[in-house]
Amino acid sequence: MSTSSSLADALIVVETAGTFAFALSGLIEAARKRLDAVGVCFVAGLTAFGGGTVRDVLLDRRPFFWVAHAGWLWALLVVCALVMLVLRARHLPPTERAMQAPDAFGLGLFAASGTQIALDASMPSIVAVLMGTVTAAFGGVLRDVVCNEIPRVFNDHRPYAVCAFAGGWVVVVAHVLGWPPPLGLVAGATLAVVLRFLSLIFDWKLPAWRQQ
Amino acid sequence: MSTSSSLADALIVVETAGTFAFALSGLIEAARKRLDAVGVCFVAGLTAFGGGTVRDVLLDRRPFFWVAHAGWLWALLVVCALVMLVLRARHLPPTERAMQAPDAFGLGLFAASGTQIALDASMPSIVAVLMGTVTAAFGGVLRDVVCNEIPRVFNDHRPYAVCAFAGGWVVVVAHVLGWPPPLGLVAGATLAVVLRFLSLIFDWKLPAWRQQ
Amino acid sequence: MSTSSSLADALIVVETAGTFAFALSGLIEAARKRLDAVGVCFVAGLTAFGGGTVRDVLLDRRPFFWVAHAGWLWALLVVCALVMLVLRARHLPPTERAMQAPDAFGLGLFAASGTQIALDASMPSIVAVLMGTVTAAFGGVLRDVVCNEIPRVFNDHRPYAVCAFAGGWVVVVAHVLGWPPPLGLVAGATLAVVLRFLSLIFDWKLPAWRQQ
Repeated sequence: MSTSSSLADALIVVETAGTFAFALSGLIEAARKRLDAVGVCFVAGLTAFGGGTVRDVLLDRRPFFWVAHAGWLWALLVVCALVMLVLRARHLPPTERAMQAPDAFGLGLFAASGTQIALDASMPSIVAVLMGTVTAAFGGVLRDVVCNEIPRVFNDHRPYAVCAFAGGWVVVVAHVLGWPPPLGLVAGATLAVVLRFLSLIFDWKLPAWRQQ
Repeated sequence: MSTSSSLADALIVVETAGTFAFALSGLIEAARKRLDAVGVCFVAGLTAFGGGTVRDVLLDRRPFFWVAHAGWLWALLVVCALVMLVLRARHLPPTERAMQAPDAFGLGLFAASGTQIALDASMPSIVAVLMGTVTAAFGGVLRDVVCNEIPRVFNDHRPYAVCAFAGGWVVVVAHVLGWPPPLGLVAGATLAVVLRFLSLIFDWKLPAWRQQ
Repeated sequence: MSTSSSLADALIVVETAGTFAFALSGLIEAARKRLDAVGVCFVAGLTAFGGGTVRDVLLDRRPFFWVAHAGWLWALLVVCALVMLVLRARHLPPTERAMQAPDAFGLGLFAASGTQIALDASMPSIVAVLMGTVTAAFGGVLRDVVCNEIPRVFNDHRPYAVCAFAGGWVVVVAHVLGWPPPLGLVAGATLAVVLRFLSLIFDWKLPAWRQQ
C-alpha cells in the first residue's frame, strides 16, 4: 500500500491546517464584502472545503474530508462565530493584507496534499500537479466567484498558482526518487509557502498580456 | 430498508413540487435580467435542478432526478414557453416580490428532502442537515452566480439558509425519534416554509458584520 | 458493444479538435480581460476541458479526457505560451470577432460528441441532447462566470445553445435510424457549425423577453 499510516496521519494534519487557514481567508473576504452571518459561514466553508471537494469529485474519491471528519463542520461554525464576535468587539478592519498570511499557508499545504493524493490514485505527473494546484487555488476561485469578483488568482499579476505548481513538482520528484512521502509533503508545502511569501515581500510580477 | 416505498413516493412528490417552485423563481429572475429564451430556460433549469444535482454529486448518488424522470425536462421547457408567452401577453412585470412565494416553497421542500436523502445514505447529522441546506440554497446560488450577482442568500440579511437549516434539524430529530419518515419530511418542510414566510412578513434581520 | 473502435477513434478526433477550438476562444477572452499569464492558461483550460468534465461528472464517467490523454495538458500550456508570444509580438488585438470561428467549431464538435457519449451510456434522448448542449455550452459558461460576465450564451440573443441542441437531435435520430455512429457524429457537428455560422452571418435573433 503506497499510503502508509504515517502518510495518512501527515495528510490529515496538513489538510486540517490548510482548511483552517483558508476558512480564515474566506471569513475575512466575506466580511469585507459585508455579507450577513450566513454568508460569512458559507463563504468561509466554501473557501475551506471547496478546493478539496472539487479535487475529490474529479478523482472520484469518497468520503469527502468534511464527511469523514464531520467535527470540522462544527469547528468551522464555532470559529466563524468567535472571529465575528472578536473582530466586531475590537473594531479590527478586515483588510486584504490580513488575508495574505493564512492564504499563503493554505496554498502551500493544499498544493502538497492534493498532489500526493493524486499520485496515490496513480495519476500521471502533470495531472497530479494540476490536482494539487486546483486543490490549492479553487477554494479561492469559488470564494471570489460567489463574491462577484474576477478570481484574484487569475488577474492580480502576482505568483500564486505558480507557487502551488512549483510545490507540486517537488512532491512529484520526491515520489519518483522514492523519498518517504511525509518528507516530500513537507518539502513541497514549504517551498510553495516560502515562494508565496517571497513574492509578496519582493513584489514579484508575472508576465502579463500587453497592458497598453 | 430505511427507504420504504411510501417514503420514496413522498420524496418524489416533494422533489417535484420543489423543482417546479424553483423553476418559477429562476424563470422570473432570468426575465428580470432580460436574458433571451435560451437563457431563461437554462437559468430556470439550473435553479430547479442545480441544488439537487450538486447534492447527488456530493453523495455520489445516481441516476439524477432529471435523468430518472426525463419527462420533467420536457415539462420544464413547456412551462418556460408558456410562462414567457403569458407574461408577455399580460404585460406582468417580473418583480422580485413575485419570486418570493415559489422560492420559499422550494426552500422548505428541498431542505427536508435533501436532509432525508443524506440520512438514508448514512451521513452524520450535521452533514445531513448541511446537504439539505445545500440542496435548498444552491439552486439559488447558481442562479445568482450566472446572473452575475452576489448570491442573495449570502447578503440580503434576511433568514433564508437559516430556515432550511432549522427544517433540516426537524427531519434529523424525527429520524432519531423513529417517526415514520414521511411525517418528519412534512414537518421539516412546513417549519422551513413557515419560518421563511414569517421572516418576510415581519422583516426579520440576521446579525450582520458591523455595517458602519 | 455500441462503441466500435472506429467510433472511439472518431470521438477522440472530434474531442481533440473541439478542445483546441475552445482553448483558443478562452485564451482570447482571457486576453481581452487582461488576465495575467496564469489566468490565461487557467481560463483557456477551463473553457477547453470544462464542458467535457462537467458532462463526465454528470455521467459518472472516468477517466476524464484530460487524464486519459495527459499530453493535451502539456499541449495546452505550450499553445498558450506560443499564442501569447505571437499576439504580443504582432500587436494583434484580441477581439470578440476573433473568438467566433473557433468557438463555433468547438460548439458543433462537442455537441455531437457529448450527445453520442450520453447515448452510449443509455441515457434517454432528451437527456442525451441536453448533455451534448451542456458539453458544448458549459466551457463558455464557466469562462464567462470566472471572467465576471453574464454568460454570453444566456443573453446575447443570438442562437448558440440552440445550434448545439439541433445538432444533438441529428445524432439522436441517426442513432435511432441505426446509421453508423461516426456518420451521425459528423452530420450533427456539421449542422450545428453551419447553423452557428449562418446565424452570425445573417444576424438571426432569438425571441426575447419583452425588451420594453
